[in-house]
Amino acid sequence: MAEEEKKKILIVVTHGPEDIDRTYAPMFMASIAASMEMDTSVFFMIKGPLLLDKKWQEEERKKGDNPFIRFFDMAKDNGVKMYVCIQSLKDMCHMREDQVISDVSIVGGSTLIDLTLDADRSLFF
Amino acid sequence: MAEEEKKKILIVVTHGPEDIDRTYAPMFMASIAASMEMDTSVFFMIKGPLLLDKKWQEEERKKGDNPFIRFFDMAKDNGVKMYVCIQSLKDMCHMREDQVISDVSIVGGSTLIDLTLDADRSLFF
Amino acid sequence: MAEEEKKKILIVVTHGPEDIDRTYAPMFMASIAASMEMDTSVFFMIKGPLLLDKKWQEEERKKGDNPFIRFFDMAKDNGVKMYVCIQSLKDMCHMREDQVISDVSIVGGSTLIDLTLDADRSLFF
Repeated sequence: MAEEEKKKILIVVTHGPEDIDRTYAPMFMASIAASMEMDTSVFFMIKGPLLLDKKWQEEERKKGDNPFIRFFDMAKDNGVKMYVCIQSLKDMCHMREDQVISDVSIVGGSTLIDLTLDADRSLFF
Repeated sequence: MAEEEKKKILIVVTHGPEDIDRTYAPMFMASIAASMEMDTSVFFMIKGPLLLDKKWQEEERKKGDNPFIRFFDMAKDNGVKMYVCIQSLKDMCHMREDQVISDVSIVGGSTLIDLTLDADRSLFF
Repeated sequence: MAEEEKKKILIVVTHGPEDIDRTYAPMFMASIAASMEMDTSVFFMIKGPLLLDKKWQEEERKKGDNPFIRFFDMAKDNGVKMYVCIQSLKDMCHMREDQVISDVSIVGGSTLIDLTLDADRSLFF
């Protein structure tokens, strides 16, 4: 399907490891939307950036069996684009940019407004 | 009003009995939207499916005075369609399909994407 | 820009002082959207009305350094319109109308449906 005909879906993830149960569904939805040939993006904010911490992901991969990690990998394999809000990253999650895993765009909060306006539909979790 | 002219509203319920205070407003909104002659659907996911457990609803009806139950009944009477995500139902809420009250469509997670695309507006709670 | 050409953004705030961390981002987003020349509204519901309590705001201003207050003031200065759901205000937050700070429209829950239909995009937090 031509890129410009694809529906655009944005999924916003506001929870992190503090409430990991709430992170599985959005990542699963992102993975599904991408497999349905939609142009899919995920925006991590509030506590969501903690899910993108290199060390946290590494530990969870060692432990194994974290559904977030499984769906996250599926989403990436399906071509989902990942964005993280720099204000949430720094002020809310106390992370540095170099702690974020690769292939994630670190962007300002105003990008959420742009992504939402650009998307056909946005889902908030 | 002709069915095809009606606005379509989707309301997504992600909380359940663990945070019952967060379930009243979405169900109230569903009931209102339907009474405003809108084609209204509710999608239960994450912890939301627990609200559709036969036994839980029966107990809450016996206790009486649960606003969720009151708004749920109003929503049904107003013609709101109910959907539950089977992945959340099974993997998150550890429920079986036969534990779900009647008149709820048990659907795969991808249905959320379809419903969101079909709806004029989606509200996330 | 002519008023009718402006994009309309609605931001829904469902958390309050019980989870203050979840209130900074939506208020920051409202402030940014308004500064991007969008017609921006915030709708406070569920626990959100507690953020509009005169006494609570006064105490937070005395303490200083509450990011919600900082972003709230920025949002107001940027012309963001504020609405509060009267059902949440009374039934959920046990507040009276005269406890709400000035320049907030106290409206029924059905107004959320109207605002959502009127907005180009709605963001739920």
